[in-house]
Amino acid sequence: MLIVMKPQASTAQIGAVVEKIHALGLAAHEIPGAQRVAIGITGNRGALDPEAFASLPGVADAIRVSQPFKLVSREVKEEDTVIEVGGSRLGGMGLAIIAGPCSVESEEQILEVARGVKESGATFLRGGAFKPRTSPYEFQGLGEAGLKLLALAREKTGLKVVTEVMDTEDLPLVADYADVLQLGARNMQNFSLLRRLGKLGKPVLLKRGASATIKEWLMAAEYIVSAGNYEVALCERGIRTFETMTRNTLDLNAVPVLKVLTHLPVIVDPSHGIGVRRHVPAMARAAIAAGADGLIIEVHPHPDQALSDGHQSLSLPEFADLMRAVRVIAGAIGRPV
Amino acid sequence: MLIVMKPQASTAQIGAVVEKIHALGLAAHEIPGAQRVAIGITGNRGALDPEAFASLPGVADAIRVSQPFKLVSREVKEEDTVIEVGGSRLGGMGLAIIAGPCSVESEEQILEVARGVKESGATFLRGGAFKPRTSPYEFQGLGEAGLKLLALAREKTGLKVVTEVMDTEDLPLVADYADVLQLGARNMQNFSLLRRLGKLGKPVLLKRGASATIKEWLMAAEYIVSAGNYEVALCERGIRTFETMTRNTLDLNAVPVLKVLTHLPVIVDPSHGIGVRRHVPAMARAAIAAGADGLIIEVHPHPDQALSDGHQSLSLPEFADLMRAVRVIAGAIGRPV
Amino acid sequence: MLIVMKPQASTAQIGAVVEKIHALGLAAHEIPGAQRVAIGITGNRGALDPEAFASLPGVADAIRVSQPFKLVSREVKEEDTVIEVGGSRLGGMGLAIIAGPCSVESEEQILEVARGVKESGATFLRGGAFKPRTSPYEFQGLGEAGLKLLALAREKTGLKVVTEVMDTEDLPLVADYADVLQLGARNMQNFSLLRRLGKLGKPVLLKRGASATIKEWLMAAEYIVSAGNYEVALCERGIRTFETMTRNTLDLNAVPVLKVLTHLPVIVDPSHGIGVRRHVPAMARAAIAAGADGLIIEVHPHPDQALSDGHQSLSLPEFADLMRAVRVIAGAIGRPV
Amino acid sequence: MLIVMKPQASTAQIGAVVEKIHALGLAAHEIPGAQRVAIGITGNRGALDPEAFASLPGVADAIRVSQPFKLVSREVKEEDTVIEVGGSRLGGMGLAIIAGPCSVESEEQILEVARGVKESGATFLRGGAFKPRTSPYEFQGLGEAGLKLLALAREKTGLKVVTEVMDTEDLPLVADYADVLQLGARNMQNFSLLRRLGKLGKPVLLKRGASATIKEWLMAAEYIVSAGNYEVALCERGIRTFETMTRNTLDLNAVPVLKVLTHLPVIVDPSHGIGVRRHVPAMARAAIAAGADGLIIEVHPHPDQALSDGHQSLSLPEFADLMRAVRVIAGAIGRPV
Repeated sequence: MLIVMKPQASTAQIGAVVEKIHALGLAAHEIPGAQRVAIGITGNRGALDPEAFASLPGVADAIRVSQPFKLVSREVKEEDTVIEVGGSRLGGMGLAIIAGPCSVESEEQILEVARGVKESGATFLRGGAFKPRTSPYEFQGLGEAGLKLLALAREKTGLKVVTEVMDTEDLPLVADYADVLQLGARNMQNFSLLRRLGKLGKPVLLKRGASATIKEWLMAAEYIVSAGNYEVALCERGIRTFETMTRNTLDLNAVPVLKVLTHLPVIVDPSHGIGVRRHVPAMARAAIAAGADGLIIEVHPHPDQALSDGHQSLSLPEFADLMRAVRVIAGAIGRPV
Repeated sequence: MLIVMKPQASTAQIGAVVEKIHALGLAAHEIPGAQRVAIGITGNRGALDPEAFASLPGVADAIRVSQPFKLVSREVKEEDTVIEVGGSRLGGMGLAIIAGPCSVESEEQILEVARGVKESGATFLRGGAFKPRTSPYEFQGLGEAGLKLLALAREKTGLKVVTEVMDTEDLPLVADYADVLQLGARNMQNFSLLRRLGKLGKPVLLKRGASATIKEWLMAAEYIVSAGNYEVALCERGIRTFETMTRNTLDLNAVPVLKVLTHLPVIVDPSHGIGVRRHVPAMARAAIAAGADGLIIEVHPHPDQALSDGHQSLSLPEFADLMRAVRVIAGAIGRPV
Repeated sequence: MLIVMKPQASTAQIGAVVEKIHALGLAAHEIPGAQRVAIGITGNRGALDPEAFASLPGVADAIRVSQPFKLVSREVKEEDTVIEVGGSRLGGMGLAIIAGPCSVESEEQILEVARGVKESGATFLRGGAFKPRTSPYEFQGLGEAGLKLLALAREKTGLKVVTEVMDTEDLPLVADYADVLQLGARNMQNFSLLRRLGKLGKPVLLKRGASATIKEWLMAAEYIVSAGNYEVALCERGIRTFETMTRNTLDLNAVPVLKVLTHLPVIVDPSHGIGVRRHVPAMARAAIAAGADGLIIEVHPHPDQALSDGHQSLSLPEFADLMRAVRVIAGAIGRPV
Repeated sequence: MLIVMKPQASTAQIGAVVEKIHALGLAAHEIPGAQRVAIGITGNRGALDPEAFASLPGVADAIRVSQPFKLVSREVKEEDTVIEVGGSRLGGMGLAIIAGPCSVESEEQILEVARGVKESGATFLRGGAFKPRTSPYEFQGLGEAGLKLLALAREKTGLKVVTEVMDTEDLPLVADYADVLQLGARNMQNFSLLRRLGKLGKPVLLKRGASATIKEWLMAAEYIVSAGNYEVALCERGIRTFETMTRNTLDLNAVPVLKVLTHLPVIVDPSHGIGVRRHVPAMARAAIAAGADGLIIEVHPHPDQALSDGHQSLSLPEFADLMRAVRVIAGAIGRPV
């Protein structure tokens, strides 16, 4: 249920609504950024009676939310969520361009990439310090040393840092260094971690699970938001299908569907999504044309020597070319990069 | 194996190569459109020895084809295939725009759609007369009466007709009326029908099976081409995934992958692909940005009254809007509509 | 809608009900094998009013059928369908065991297999004469020569013949030789062929499409039955999943689900289903334990020399072992082989 | 690489091999339970040279392991792993029967179920105290109170307790109460948690991810085993497919495939696997016939009042019936329950 207050509702009237919600044993969520005050109610098992709230002083409307996801839905918050990260943004008219290597490997590597992608127009730096790997015998990332190198690259370039957190244990450490915390596809339904990210209050980039439905993905976002953190961006990174010529199948259908269902920004990862370097630019262009709010792109100074995902990483000149192509499409639909 | 003749090879030298291929019990295919003469060899079980051909007079090169699909692969024919259909084209720099109703329903309906889509820039008219339906109790199409109405609409508008053939029995009838024969997703591996389409020599629009891999799809095209018909366009129309918010999942990854693997034109069907009217324009724009050679779009004068697929059909004004959006994207990447 | 007549209903009363159905422009289907006369109605768009029929003389009940599949559902016909094929059976308490090679290759091969599998307890002989192959360059079967060899094996062993038909064109020829017509997975939604099989009146073994849902499969069976042929057995043969260690994923879940939903017999094909010779016996045992009405097993005298599917074919001694294992499980649940 | 020592190899000789492995910067794993001493080597990037070890004193053989999973593979350890849990067992000839409610709800509920399933022959008690739920608004389990009730039920019945751990944070608490730690499907690739379970040294029941391949699943088990814990049982619990008539698709193909690839016990969960109460017994029988080492079954005293998963839980009398059916199949293939 969503309680929409009248524009002129007083603080006392708002407080009375919240009190009534608590008195029913339910949770009240003030919805940020709305032009009018609105309060989401969650925690009820059955349907609530709108009349119980509609008649309270200062209440304009009491609306049933039809979707199982509540606080992330456009029914509850119509305006696009825009996440401000120290001058850069996720969401809004401008496109967010997150670029960098799969794994942080060395100071030289990360600085070279950070400077290069910034020059071509990236607005965030990505880089993995803790890497989820299918095999226990593969390179697992540099850990804290990698985080320090990301911080150094931020200091040198001004690019804000997006990096993955894999575990509640590592969360305080990673949060110390990251500007945006990335939650990987395999952790999309790690509910303990989702709840912790909700309480932490740092922006989160929530990747879609490789076989997750859009509803499951939005329910995962709802875990974060219902714990108090509205700064969540969704990242489509390819689903598992029967196709073997590509690593995953980038699902661009998710873009227009999400833009209708939710107010959260939608970022697309064509690098993991198609997983083949030569095809990344086509999918990046298509993502923007479909209405995505940004891209996350793997870039490596020497893709053939990368410790992970070299086959899908662009070189710096290839990234510069990609940015030119993206700008053309973005311009055609009236969005600045 | 592909035998590439020298530019100055004589007819007699070419004939000698073909004769040698036949003498080995194999099939020889002259590859159309190449600047130099080339001959594909199929029918061998094991690998052939290139030396056996490379030393023949007039032969420039004998090349092993690494893919299981041969005649449809770019290894065998580098240049894009362009299918001329009485003034309109599938393939090449320009975009093919195929539009019309799911089913032909009446003279009034088909003429209204045909005139409307032509005005907005469509280059082909689509419309089903024989409809594959999951249930035997659903509307199965008007049959020959529908074909006659399509012919009438062609006469009145000049638009060439694309319509589905479901069966070898109906093939002569449908071929009498159609300019391009569409093979539906469920029939992608109807090998008898594929072979017949290969012998018939009319252009074919081959839809991808809902769970087919790209390799299986290209092998289906190979059935048609190896029977003698090079006029095949591929149509991506959505794959089956776990997602339930869309009818299918339009797989735009297939576009860049196919453009590398094959010389055949690639058309995209966002109407079936995402299956939700409001999301069709986003996916159409994305398809063009990804490099598709054209679109096939369901349009109905009154989508809410359509006998089939109304939920995914655009109205005529919506189609006109879509065409404007497509032109913007096409223009941005330098392709005329 | 299902009209159930009273046990003592007269022929004239039954005729009056059929007449009323026809008068409404609908189709009437007398349901075979029931202890009382029942008449299925199909062809209506909206819901029919039961009252319109319940009040007619001789009518016991008029029941709405909730499933989209009507004549194949247990709602319409409670008793199991048992298909008699000249002494052998598909359906009923006994298990049908269909065994033989993927492809008929030679007289020697088919006779050796037929004699061998009969000795071990098979009740039908399988063998492909027309083979659907992904590539146009692979072995496509012996055609009519293969059918003649199957007929010879039937003559020598008494085993009834199950063989695939790929096309409406070949149907008369294949029907001349086959006792049971197999419809392959790729043709499950070849609606023209389904309708023809409905009119032909020979038993059909309808394989499930590799990505078909159970509902789609039953709708395909409904095409055959609604055209007049109730002798349809369903064959689970593995679905496409992400697993690469097996050819397909045999879906035994379909067995108990189908036994509740439909009266048609359910046969399981573990050879294609798992596609690895050493694992076929485990899946065959499991199929029987799950309640399947029979098995179809690929057997070849020399699997390593088979022209197709050798990797999943059992040798004759392996088949004899399998039959012993199947008998043990069948015995444990009280079903004779 | 696997180093197999001669039967008469001395402790010093074994020590020398381990020392050599460490000197190369690699990890040495003594393989438990083998009749001869064997040492697995992991951590190498490229292939190792067998000669470097084969010539050491006491070494019988140095064998390359072809699979990406090493310590869990049968190549490295031929004998079945049998996990002893205070008198009960996972693995070996006898079948493990794990039964109990989806969620622990109350003292009365868990004691009634525990007593009931024990009487029918269960060897372990299952019950969830921490529940992974798609929605943050659904019942999340009783937490520690639930663990205490499980301990009480163990005290009263002697049944060993299997319960889920969702997070590294909760691990110490859950490990205090559980005899076997269950890792849920959504956490199959929670690599931090896997490593912790490897170090903890309690038996683990590792559920398959809903879209995981068998290889990915075995790699997840490898994380646990390579961290030092060989007591891992695998649990097939259904994969995600296109079918909507069942909750998941229980993949019994995994049973024979795993029994060949790995020495770890294989348990099957038909309750989640098919997710429909009336179909659970058929799938349980099929699992045993396919060669599973045990079952995990949801049982509730009043399924219709269950707080979670009531639609797939058996009542106590239904469970008693199931056990009779399972005993019949187990007896037929010579396995005691």
